[in-house]
Amino acid sequence: MRTDSVPIARKTNASAEALLVATAELLSERGDLDVSFAEISRRSGVNAAMIKYYFGNKDGLLLALVERDAERPMAAMDHLLTTALPADEKLRIHISGVINTYHRSPYLNRVTHHLLNNASPDAATRVIDIFMAPMVNAYRVIIAQGVDEGTLAETDPRFLYFTIVGACEHIFFANSTVRHVLGAAKVTDRIKQEFSAHVTEILLAGLRPRPIG
Amino acid sequence: MRTDSVPIARKTNASAEALLVATAELLSERGDLDVSFAEISRRSGVNAAMIKYYFGNKDGLLLALVERDAERPMAAMDHLLTTALPADEKLRIHISGVINTYHRSPYLNRVTHHLLNNASPDAATRVIDIFMAPMVNAYRVIIAQGVDEGTLAETDPRFLYFTIVGACEHIFFANSTVRHVLGAAKVTDRIKQEFSAHVTEILLAGLRPRPIG
Repeated sequence: MRTDSVPIARKTNASAEALLVATAELLSERGDLDVSFAEISRRSGVNAAMIKYYFGNKDGLLLALVERDAERPMAAMDHLLTTALPADEKLRIHISGVINTYHRSPYLNRVTHHLLNNASPDAATRVIDIFMAPMVNAYRVIIAQGVDEGTLAETDPRFLYFTIVGACEHIFFANSTVRHVLGAAKVTDRIKQEFSAHVTEILLAGLRPRPIG
Repeated sequence: MRTDSVPIARKTNASAEALLVATAELLSERGDLDVSFAEISRRSGVNAAMIKYYFGNKDGLLLALVERDAERPMAAMDHLLTTALPADEKLRIHISGVINTYHRSPYLNRVTHHLLNNASPDAATRVIDIFMAPMVNAYRVIIAQGVDEGTLAETDPRFLYFTIVGACEHIFFANSTVRHVLGAAKVTDRIKQEFSAHVTEILLAGLRPRPIG
């Protein structure tokens, strides 16, 4: 029995994964979420009916994509919190990580906000649990450590969430803005690295304890 | 002849303005751009056919809304550039202004990016001319002044555009995020003021010239 079920399970996961990969590719190429089941099926080579089978509906597919994309960066953030590094170094690594995540998945902000605003309450709760809540918590922990170490100023971690995510994400939000502002067709690896240096410098310097008087 | 034409022109503008006001209200209440002509007509009391008459199509209506919303803040920014204030003070006033603009028109980023990505090339060019190009130029001028005055570090004004707009705008992008992170139904005037203080402090401190060594 086991020899039968293992290959079937593997095939199942491969099809679901192929659908997610195709969706990620199509969303990365677009400025919106208007990607049809037919296009996803064509790109993945998986029958469109399987989308319903695995994910229920489009929001289920998008939520699965967010969960897949969040897995590595959120595990990395959890790990970062428990390492022995100084708080400002943790923050620097985290900010680069956020930029890398959006670079890899430029549709991520569009998808999460669609799920928060327009999908079922369950999907919204799941997005909060995956992203917002752990990030705000991480900022609380890192700031407390940095205040102790004298390298970071007291800062509201909830406001910091909006500041960091916004500063890191906006460049990936619309390729056409990049085209017109930077004269590049998209955020290349090189632009990403320069922008990452720019953002981390400003935010790290901006979060130093203020000199008194 | 003149006595005839003036009231007609006024009536024309009043209907177009009523359509824009209704569109702004409906978009402020939503998380997306799915507002129908029928809803806009109902809210404004203006016949839906007048939307086509004044604005051609939905993208024309959205572009007119962006132009209306941009008029005051962009004029204020132009004026700021010519005043005798120090560069860091100009930047502080500008950042509060960006936050006020998004607070007043929380749909603005959604609409501009829709026009950039999905509308006609003409609409995209217009959005760049209204927003991106003047802002990047303003940052170039302000940074050059601040470097001269010794209060601002050399910074790429194009990257700064993404950092400032992203940091200022993300909190207004999705009300549901605010609900979950801050426990408030929306960004109130008080939250806006606290957030504005938070962002301006971080960015101004972050943009000071770095101490050498």
